[in-house]
Amino acid sequence: MKISQKELGIKMGMDPSSASGRMNHYETGRHMPDLTTLKKLATELNVPVNYFFCESEESATLACLIEKLDDEGKRKLIQLLESQ
Amino acid sequence: MKISQKELGIKMGMDPSSASGRMNHYETGRHMPDLTTLKKLATELNVPVNYFFCESEESATLACLIEKLDDEGKRKLIQLLESQ
Repeated sequence: MKISQKELGIKMGMDPSSASGRMNHYETGRHMPDLTTLKKLATELNVPVNYFFCESEESATLACLIEKLDDEGKRKLIQLLESQ
Repeated sequence: MKISQKELGIKMGMDPSSASGRMNHYETGRHMPDLTTLKKLATELNVPVNYFFCESEESATLACLIEKLDDEGKRKLIQLLESQ
């Protein structure tokens, strides 16, 4: 996806005049988005909210892959990992 | 682990006089903890920070199990899930 910070902010419902600045503050870590903003951002980027808090690239990739599993698939994966 | 909100807050470095109230506001969702507080809470509870943002019990369990894998284990799991 090729989209600017500003465009992403506007898609999330931000005012066009402040979208770029707000999104930039989130990206640089100056401000932490509240949960409502995080949920909107996750929806726009098609990732789960927990994706933003993963501490490695691998964990973030896994968070996305896991979100695509249904409950049965998740339970099977839990069994697999607990048996190792 | 059997520990009160207040005790947990104190272990995280909060002032004993405000620990109970602050922790209660986080639990009820009235306030969102900042990232520093989330990291302290995760350390005390021995979970990854993204655990707090998982939307199902299964995803939360998986976040903890994945955090215990080394990078090689995570990469193998990514391959497994991408091949399905």
